[in-house]
Amino acid sequence: MEKENRVSITVIRRLPKYYRYLNDLLNKGINRISSQELSKMTGFTASQIRQDLNNFGGFGQQGYGYNVEDLHSQLGKILGLDKVYKSVIAGAGNLGQAIANYRGFQDAGFEVLSLFDKNPKLIGIKIRDIEIRDVDEMESFIKENGIEIGIITTPKESAQMIAEIFERSGIKGIWNFAPADIKVKEDIIVENVYLNESLFALSYFMNNKKDYVRRD
Amino acid sequence: MEKENRVSITVIRRLPKYYRYLNDLLNKGINRISSQELSKMTGFTASQIRQDLNNFGGFGQQGYGYNVEDLHSQLGKILGLDKVYKSVIAGAGNLGQAIANYRGFQDAGFEVLSLFDKNPKLIGIKIRDIEIRDVDEMESFIKENGIEIGIITTPKESAQMIAEIFERSGIKGIWNFAPADIKVKEDIIVENVYLNESLFALSYFMNNKKDYVRRD
Repeated sequence: MEKENRVSITVIRRLPKYYRYLNDLLNKGINRISSQELSKMTGFTASQIRQDLNNFGGFGQQGYGYNVEDLHSQLGKILGLDKVYKSVIAGAGNLGQAIANYRGFQDAGFEVLSLFDKNPKLIGIKIRDIEIRDVDEMESFIKENGIEIGIITTPKESAQMIAEIFERSGIKGIWNFAPADIKVKEDIIVENVYLNESLFALSYFMNNKKDYVRRD
Repeated sequence: MEKENRVSITVIRRLPKYYRYLNDLLNKGINRISSQELSKMTGFTASQIRQDLNNFGGFGQQGYGYNVEDLHSQLGKILGLDKVYKSVIAGAGNLGQAIANYRGFQDAGFEVLSLFDKNPKLIGIKIRDIEIRDVDEMESFIKENGIEIGIITTPKESAQMIAEIFERSGIKGIWNFAPADIKVKEDIIVENVYLNESLFALSYFMNNKKDYVRRD
């Protein structure tokens, strides 16, 4: 029974994409869209879109299509974007600062409360009112502030050590940018962003154009 | 016939992962690995690994397994990592600077020759000897220096305009970090990194643990 209720990873990975397209439609003032039109925008087939959304109850009406605002808000709830998440960033170099600076995350409910680094030159500096603190204070900061998400933007050599501090502090989800596999207990959600792998896919396709299928 | 020769996207997306693991093995001085051991490391089944590699000729020997150095170098060639790619970065904010600073890309043969921005305060500054130039000079710089890869780290509002400059200048591949779908002619390879989608997947799994399967 458990298995039948499980939504497949490939469906889940498409949801944020639907959400992004619906957001664009909302910004353009479009209220209503058919699965055919959604198919044209996203490159997925209309029947796949209908099937994907049916996993969560199905939101369309025969002959009408989807109400954009409604579907956007429902998908937002499914993705957990109706909540606010408190997060910290370990590693206050360019990448950490880029994430702290990025308004899009804040707008989606992801609040960065602090950056942490071991470089004394960075400690005390503020990025958009977000202070950079000594990594030695990270564990107590996370516990005292009920932080749920830990973001790793350190070099790969420090990633496992940081992950273990996150684990000890009760972090629930880790967004990892270090090119390393981090090991933490199974009930912590780990989402890896391996930029090298994306770059290598680009170079593969540049060398093997026959295999290339554009994906948005 | 064309279709039969085409390697599937899911296989291609796994290659950079194999490459990363083999790199780790090389760094540990391990010369030989079985598909079973590779399976334990990567989480893919041994038969999947053998099938994946057979797309490119198959490199293992029955009863011996794979020679790590050899497989690493063959995969590197398949991924096009035996070449050097000249690239430029459009958008010299934190994210652009993070990429320019990241040694891992340089080590893999991706050379950043210049960053471009429209902010006069940034123009003339150097990031690790890489100069930030005025975006108005980008088109001629790309043509004069035979740049193949264009990296977009601008806000989403500028992404399409930058992509069109890349297209006019003869860029072959675009690595896009802006949360926008860019439209360029079909023979330009576009690899998108949508950070929001990764973050939304994290929040989905934090809210729907039953669906979570860790993927490295």
